[in-house]
Amino acid sequence: MTSDRLHDQIRFILEVDKLKGIVRRTYLADGTRRENSAEHSWHVAAMAVVLAEHANEPVDADRVVRMLLVHDVVEVDAGDTFVYDTAGAESKAERERRAADRLFGLLPGDQGGDLRALWEEFEAARTADARFAAALDRLMPVLHNIHTGGRAWRENGVTADMVIGRNSRMAEGSRALWEYARALIDRAVASGALAPAPGTGG
Amino acid sequence: MTSDRLHDQIRFILEVDKLKGIVRRTYLADGTRRENSAEHSWHVAAMAVVLAEHANEPVDADRVVRMLLVHDVVEVDAGDTFVYDTAGAESKAERERRAADRLFGLLPGDQGGDLRALWEEFEAARTADARFAAALDRLMPVLHNIHTGGRAWRENGVTADMVIGRNSRMAEGSRALWEYARALIDRAVASGALAPAPGTGG
Repeated sequence: MTSDRLHDQIRFILEVDKLKGIVRRTYLADGTRRENSAEHSWHVAAMAVVLAEHANEPVDADRVVRMLLVHDVVEVDAGDTFVYDTAGAESKAERERRAADRLFGLLPGDQGGDLRALWEEFEAARTADARFAAALDRLMPVLHNIHTGGRAWRENGVTADMVIGRNSRMAEGSRALWEYARALIDRAVASGALAPAPGTGG
Repeated sequence: MTSDRLHDQIRFILEVDKLKGIVRRTYLADGTRRENSAEHSWHVAAMAVVLAEHANEPVDADRVVRMLLVHDVVEVDAGDTFVYDTAGAESKAERERRAADRLFGLLPGDQGGDLRALWEEFEAARTADARFAAALDRLMPVLHNIHTGGRAWRENGVTADMVIGRNSRMAEGSRALWEYARALIDRAVASGALAPAPGTGG
């Protein structure tokens, strides 16, 4: 019995190894290459440990960490959808739902159900824990862009209005982090690392 | 005040981004490349969530996760020391202590102290949480080697006696996981993926 459970759990562990091969648009802070979703997941989970005190409402930092450890696992099947890709966003929900069925379905039922519920909570972003986790997931690419002179923004034609439009929801999880990010975005526009909104003549 | 704290915390977060550039000996399960310490840290942390029930003694899975999120952070300065590298192991403790001084020292004092204590607890491997964390950290490379036909073992002249000698301590954290790993190791020797101990004529 134990060994059946363990066998299924190891199968899941090995299957999600593939997340290391899912490449995101964002570059590492040193600009050497684009990052993958596994190392990103580590980074935002570590961020939750360090930044939990900045959530708007008290959060359970350990739940936020667990949520962030699994938040991108569905990309093993569904791939990474760039946050500014509106066409991809349309099919994203359905692709990711099917991925969740398969991947969390590899685990023993109780455990697969728990982790899937955590992933769904993250996606819905309606609890304090999920809103804070989503804020961290938004802050990280802003930091990476800032430290690479706006590289992923420029490569993908992303302008300041898009960055602000996408990331202002960070404030729902943490006003402090959004205020910090907003100041960085303004400085990026001033320095030319981020293009102003089209037609603003900036 | 908050913004000073936040500034220091973000500095730490960006500094540990470098863990994504620390390459380990172990290959990804699909064999495409060697893995880095950031994605490895994600993988063992996720493993702790899934496998906590197999610890010898009851563990606080959330503490184990936090411990594993920071267990390799010192490699940003100290690099990865291959577990079978006995020469490197001699200087490892001192290199890693200095790295911990610098890296955890970037954080606000209370927080840096907490995370450093967690890292030291992992290194000492004397608590139930730390012994279980160490067991997961040992199991993962065995799984990766098994799934790549023993590639990192062969490339580094690692033989069965070395693998068993190094990994039998897994049993201190989880007899169930060591039993599982031991069966995989025996099969790897039988299949030729892992060389037997020199002189055993296997």
